[in-house]
Amino acid sequence: MMGAMSEAFDAVDVIIAKRDRHELSDAHIRWIIDAYTRGVVADEQMSSLNMAILLNGMNRREIATWTDAMIKSGERMDFSSLRHPTADKHSTGGVGDKITLPLAPLVAVFDVAVPQLSGRGLGHTGGTLDKLESIPGWRAALSTEEMLRQLDEIGAVICAAGSGLAPADKKLYALRDVTGTVEAIPLIASSIMSKKIAEGTGALVLDVKVGSGAFMKTVDSARELAETMVDLGTDAGVNTVALLTNMQVPLGLTAGNALEVRESVEVLAGGGPEDVVELTVRLAEEMLEAAGRGGQDVRAALTDGRAMDAWRRMIAAQGGDPDAELPVAKETHEVVAGSDGVLTSLDAYAVGVAAWRLGAGRARKEDPVQAGAGIELHAKPGEQVRAGQPLMTLHTDTPERFERALEALEGGWSIGDDGTAPDLLPLIIDRIAR
Amino acid sequence: MMGAMSEAFDAVDVIIAKRDRHELSDAHIRWIIDAYTRGVVADEQMSSLNMAILLNGMNRREIATWTDAMIKSGERMDFSSLRHPTADKHSTGGVGDKITLPLAPLVAVFDVAVPQLSGRGLGHTGGTLDKLESIPGWRAALSTEEMLRQLDEIGAVICAAGSGLAPADKKLYALRDVTGTVEAIPLIASSIMSKKIAEGTGALVLDVKVGSGAFMKTVDSARELAETMVDLGTDAGVNTVALLTNMQVPLGLTAGNALEVRESVEVLAGGGPEDVVELTVRLAEEMLEAAGRGGQDVRAALTDGRAMDAWRRMIAAQGGDPDAELPVAKETHEVVAGSDGVLTSLDAYAVGVAAWRLGAGRARKEDPVQAGAGIELHAKPGEQVRAGQPLMTLHTDTPERFERALEALEGGWSIGDDGTAPDLLPLIIDRIAR
Repeated sequence: MMGAMSEAFDAVDVIIAKRDRHELSDAHIRWIIDAYTRGVVADEQMSSLNMAILLNGMNRREIATWTDAMIKSGERMDFSSLRHPTADKHSTGGVGDKITLPLAPLVAVFDVAVPQLSGRGLGHTGGTLDKLESIPGWRAALSTEEMLRQLDEIGAVICAAGSGLAPADKKLYALRDVTGTVEAIPLIASSIMSKKIAEGTGALVLDVKVGSGAFMKTVDSARELAETMVDLGTDAGVNTVALLTNMQVPLGLTAGNALEVRESVEVLAGGGPEDVVELTVRLAEEMLEAAGRGGQDVRAALTDGRAMDAWRRMIAAQGGDPDAELPVAKETHEVVAGSDGVLTSLDAYAVGVAAWRLGAGRARKEDPVQAGAGIELHAKPGEQVRAGQPLMTLHTDTPERFERALEALEGGWSIGDDGTAPDLLPLIIDRIAR
Repeated sequence: MMGAMSEAFDAVDVIIAKRDRHELSDAHIRWIIDAYTRGVVADEQMSSLNMAILLNGMNRREIATWTDAMIKSGERMDFSSLRHPTADKHSTGGVGDKITLPLAPLVAVFDVAVPQLSGRGLGHTGGTLDKLESIPGWRAALSTEEMLRQLDEIGAVICAAGSGLAPADKKLYALRDVTGTVEAIPLIASSIMSKKIAEGTGALVLDVKVGSGAFMKTVDSARELAETMVDLGTDAGVNTVALLTNMQVPLGLTAGNALEVRESVEVLAGGGPEDVVELTVRLAEEMLEAAGRGGQDVRAALTDGRAMDAWRRMIAAQGGDPDAELPVAKETHEVVAGSDGVLTSLDAYAVGVAAWRLGAGRARKEDPVQAGAGIELHAKPGEQVRAGQPLMTLHTDTPERFERALEALEGGWSIGDDGTAPDLLPLIIDRIAR
């Protein structure tokens, strides 16, 4: 580490530049990311800069340099030795979003390798690794060599991201989380894209969720985030496409770890809820197209068993038993409809928080999760329901959690009796590409 | 200290409220100032909030509550036992601003007690205590009892503020200094006024400087700061008035510790530069008026020796020898005019930085200052000068400093030869009162 006297810049000058609505120079950006990673720039300086960025913005060049500086803070992966092209998918996170599970093996069927470096859940959205860890024996931690071998031999891997990719982002994200600066589009975009670009994928499809259960509550803000990320990927030579998709209601009929694995396996067996199937197929088509392998009949691989075979190989390669019984929660509680009518709303955020409180998610990084906890839905908005009919089943190992989960669900769904159908956003709202 | 689980609020919620342009509730403000003082709210959280306040502002109620919360973080002084009413003056800081030295004894002549709790210099503006410490034997640190006795017996005291007044402000100021959030008018106003209100003065005159050598570079920003502070003082029951005064050029003909004491003594002897005399007299008149003793011939007390007598008693009471020789710097360097003409500008900031680099000021709190270092001016803007005539004399004990001081002065003054007078702001630009 260099002494403070040898530093190229003063953090206060960089903060003041952004505070006063000037553009940050490339040299300023590269220095402050590096100096923050080295511990020369203090947390209280970076948080002040983050707030200035959140309120005053960054332009396309600034965001691109910021992202590149975060990539350069760590190592990069290299997939050039693989037999097949690579395509990755990133979702901004939603309730019941288990799409990665059927999607990765489905795309692998068509000779495109899917390196899915995933995370754990925090707050009301579940984490892909938490879901897969409900499969007995399955392990998330792979060495880079194991990951590359599995990618080459099986074509799909879902594992924990190593700590070497974009360490600046890890430090910055932890800081943003406690300083009210998570919701800055330039910082969200650079955080996601620094990891995806460092990972080295050739093609990337972004699933940007919109609605109560998503990070972006409006189509406009989701579109701005999607465009920023597509620009960043494109500028970095990654073939990048984004879909804006509906997260007003949960995806599929389950939210919770083992519950979502079970639903994913149904999709891989040719069944499952239509919204999960539709989004899985569409994302697979986009990934194949972005990887130069478009125009194939993707849906057929779900019905003829090829995707299921790839799933079983992928799970087994990481120590999981694809035939094992999945954990089931010890206790259940049914929520029933109070009247006849049409289910006019079912709020994704309410369902996400309730599943989290039942034990499916964690409040702090170090908390454990319950594999069997979560919520099963028996109706989705637009469907006719009758008084007394079960609307959802709550699952947990710790029944004292039912009360707070039910509190979270209060006002989270409604039944209309005037016969009109609810006004719903389509599942796939828009597509952003350059 | 309470555990995090017992806290009334979450810092992130307070940050997000201000970030999203909502008003902070009184409860939010009182909690965050208290929790920050206790160390429960972290520096990186407070700096993020400070930046949000700088960019999104606070309204009159928020600033008043913020100020009151800082006052309540520490102790308050009580001058009610004194024989005379009290009046204090605060300057936002400028180059050559030695006004406190002649002003405090001058006001004391008229049976108004002046409790001047002062600070040390940091950066290009000098500190009142640094100046007085160039008087052999004089000491800045007094106990509260010593201070009250001196106020009652002599009527004027200039001493270091105890650490008990507004400790939240001390912590917050140090944070703002390194996070690019010094220049927030709500935070500047509450920082100054929390200490002045906690100090317990009955009347307060604010000297808000405007120009290159001041914190506020424009009349508009100085006016906004002055109005905010006058509102705060008025709301807290302190009779508060503000003057906006010129800090485009240095005040008087000296910048530096012993140099400024010498000039102050000239003013107390009935001489001295007219701008220093004019501002001293005007501020004294405002202080007497605000303390209910207006309408007296203040200037007479400078010429008839009464103010000098009060000065000598004030200095002697704090161990200083008013007859002692003042320190003189070991080395001098003259800057001469390069051509005939009118001195059209003499930049206060350039002179302030040059004096600082000569050793009159400090870069860090713990640095020592040179008593004799600084700059003597031989001409002020508007005056005719001739080629070869000395414009200023630089003083220092460490002649290797001349080079960097001269660098600071480069472009800091100009001589016009077309015979037109420079366009100067008046010394006293405006007066703000409620």
